[in-house]
Amino acid sequence: MSLSRAVSLSRDLIRCPSVTPADAGALDVVERELKAAGFETHRLIFTEPGTPDVDNLFAKIGAGAPHLVFAGHTDVVPAGDVARWSSAPFAGEIVDGRLVGRGASDMKGAIGAFMAAALSYVARHGAPKGTISFLITGDEEGPSINGTVKMLDWARARGEKFDHAIVGEPTNVSALGDTIKIGRRGSLNGKIRVIGKQGHVAYPHRADNPVPAIARIVSALSSYEFDRGTAHFDPTNLEVSSIDVGNPAVNVIPGEARAQFNVRFNDAWTLETLRARIAAVVEEAAGAARVELEFLPSNAVSFLTEPGAFTALVSDAVTAVTGRTPELSTSGGTSDARFITRDCPVVEFGLTNETIHAVDENARVADIEALAAVYERILEAYFSG
Amino acid sequence: MSLSRAVSLSRDLIRCPSVTPADAGALDVVERELKAAGFETHRLIFTEPGTPDVDNLFAKIGAGAPHLVFAGHTDVVPAGDVARWSSAPFAGEIVDGRLVGRGASDMKGAIGAFMAAALSYVARHGAPKGTISFLITGDEEGPSINGTVKMLDWARARGEKFDHAIVGEPTNVSALGDTIKIGRRGSLNGKIRVIGKQGHVAYPHRADNPVPAIARIVSALSSYEFDRGTAHFDPTNLEVSSIDVGNPAVNVIPGEARAQFNVRFNDAWTLETLRARIAAVVEEAAGAARVELEFLPSNAVSFLTEPGAFTALVSDAVTAVTGRTPELSTSGGTSDARFITRDCPVVEFGLTNETIHAVDENARVADIEALAAVYERILEAYFSG
Repeated sequence: MSLSRAVSLSRDLIRCPSVTPADAGALDVVERELKAAGFETHRLIFTEPGTPDVDNLFAKIGAGAPHLVFAGHTDVVPAGDVARWSSAPFAGEIVDGRLVGRGASDMKGAIGAFMAAALSYVARHGAPKGTISFLITGDEEGPSINGTVKMLDWARARGEKFDHAIVGEPTNVSALGDTIKIGRRGSLNGKIRVIGKQGHVAYPHRADNPVPAIARIVSALSSYEFDRGTAHFDPTNLEVSSIDVGNPAVNVIPGEARAQFNVRFNDAWTLETLRARIAAVVEEAAGAARVELEFLPSNAVSFLTEPGAFTALVSDAVTAVTGRTPELSTSGGTSDARFITRDCPVVEFGLTNETIHAVDENARVADIEALAAVYERILEAYFSG
Repeated sequence: MSLSRAVSLSRDLIRCPSVTPADAGALDVVERELKAAGFETHRLIFTEPGTPDVDNLFAKIGAGAPHLVFAGHTDVVPAGDVARWSSAPFAGEIVDGRLVGRGASDMKGAIGAFMAAALSYVARHGAPKGTISFLITGDEEGPSINGTVKMLDWARARGEKFDHAIVGEPTNVSALGDTIKIGRRGSLNGKIRVIGKQGHVAYPHRADNPVPAIARIVSALSSYEFDRGTAHFDPTNLEVSSIDVGNPAVNVIPGEARAQFNVRFNDAWTLETLRARIAAVVEEAAGAARVELEFLPSNAVSFLTEPGAFTALVSDAVTAVTGRTPELSTSGGTSDARFITRDCPVVEFGLTNETIHAVDENARVADIEALAAVYERILEAYFSG
């Protein structure tokens, strides 16, 4: 069987075991192909004390506006228990019409598809009237410190002006074409500590049990209605993910209780207004208890690309290839799109997310080919003006 | 310095390192002295699969009614960090007018005092018109399975009829004579488990977070007013001593949450009515959550010896020796008196509880001697009728 270029490139990428922060040759695959087609390429190795060095790639063809950047990551999460995979996670085998391997959907398949689309476009048209670029990081599944953020700083410093961005994250829920992401909620983590006084349960007046206070605070936070959602976003949601006292003795009142929580928040909030509201809810529920509230550092604010000409262009390309009308969604987790949105409007569209981060991650061969067709239609429409 | 008999016996007992379930010769000290004074003695070794064998002593002098039994325990809690003691915990040294050692107050000092009182009474009067007995266990600080309960069964089976009991627990808060205990609250332990469904914080609709439910349940139990106290008891009090989820990942909704609690309850409740009420509070707070409520086995119901002639007799003896009018209290922890109350009225009076279970546990030499004097006055008054 002869493989399409999109699938063959995706498989070449899967065969590089690029578990964050390892590159394992993945960026070489991308760079070699693009350079051969006339792209200017830049390998960017960023470092920071205390974090692993990360290899990244910026490649471009053409010049000036309009500039459409495709952003993605070649790094993948670990394979987990290899024995549970039905074929080796970095072999890239094709089984029953599916390309199996870690990163198949998240997101080597999308990189292979965009490469195939761009190479085909350039082969047919030559360099675009404007710029096509690739912003490919090896640090999306890791701490995200030596990746997209620093590449954007680097690009800005050398005068690159992005007009629109497509991120190849696996946005579809069950079928290619069902979902485009036009924004993401923000994410904020926090910790709560209630300090009481240890003692014996038979003499509660000599102790100060922190458990009722932490329970009140957790109840208040869990049931608090931050908002009812906004035009394009679900309601802000807080989940308390742990409460811990760690007291094995039933007859001892503990001295301390802790809890941790995560908030996924919409565009009704900034990090500052959200932190202030949480602090107020905690303070009211705490009453006289001694409470410490700590927010972990966050760079994940919410963002939105308002529906308009660009989202319509992407949506139309999706419909033309898949026959589906994609939902313009802002749900789910965070992605590097939250960094790119500072520079230009961003839309995310890639494969389906059914098997990502799981054993036997895979992508339908037909989906990878259809995704390449969608991306090529986007390029055609974007540079037709 | 020559030691009084009460102090010297107390010191002999401290020198036996009888950490539950070890006897280390402690009961031999008691038995030898009482036998020499004409008491009939019985060593009772009780066994039960899965628990350590325990040595116990029953001794009596005289016959028939009225029968006054002195109940106590020669076992002690461990010394803990021996390096932190200012004199060796089983040396029984006298420092600054205090007998120092593990068990000095809880409750070898009281046993030494009652022995001295009984030996003095018998030396002056011969056998009483009635019965004086000792019911001394080596299993009060441990599981309390092979001790007082089985001794009472044994005594009942051989036809002993106790009319009144004195338990030598350290009842006084800050000065000898400030507190007699005429009852104790009951104690009940329970565990709660809320079963949810694990998931990612970004997709809460696919998960079922057990944390809000456990927080609601803990809040409801902690703030529930079981009662406002009864004629002789403080209000029933529930303390949740731990909540545990043990989820280190801030972005993961956990699958399960647990809590444990203890209730100290008064005579408005039986174990059955209390369990039912707690189950109702938990059920209402749980809402739709899947909750498991488990009560640990308890043999600690509340009991009360109504104030009357016997409590007045004890109280008068205390006042005559110490000049203090003791409070008739039902507060604090549990004791073996909860078992004896099934056979006869019980009053508890011993040394002060300031240093019990702590490093440098001690008893004032003067207090041990005063306690012996109180006990002898009780014997005089009890058998004068």
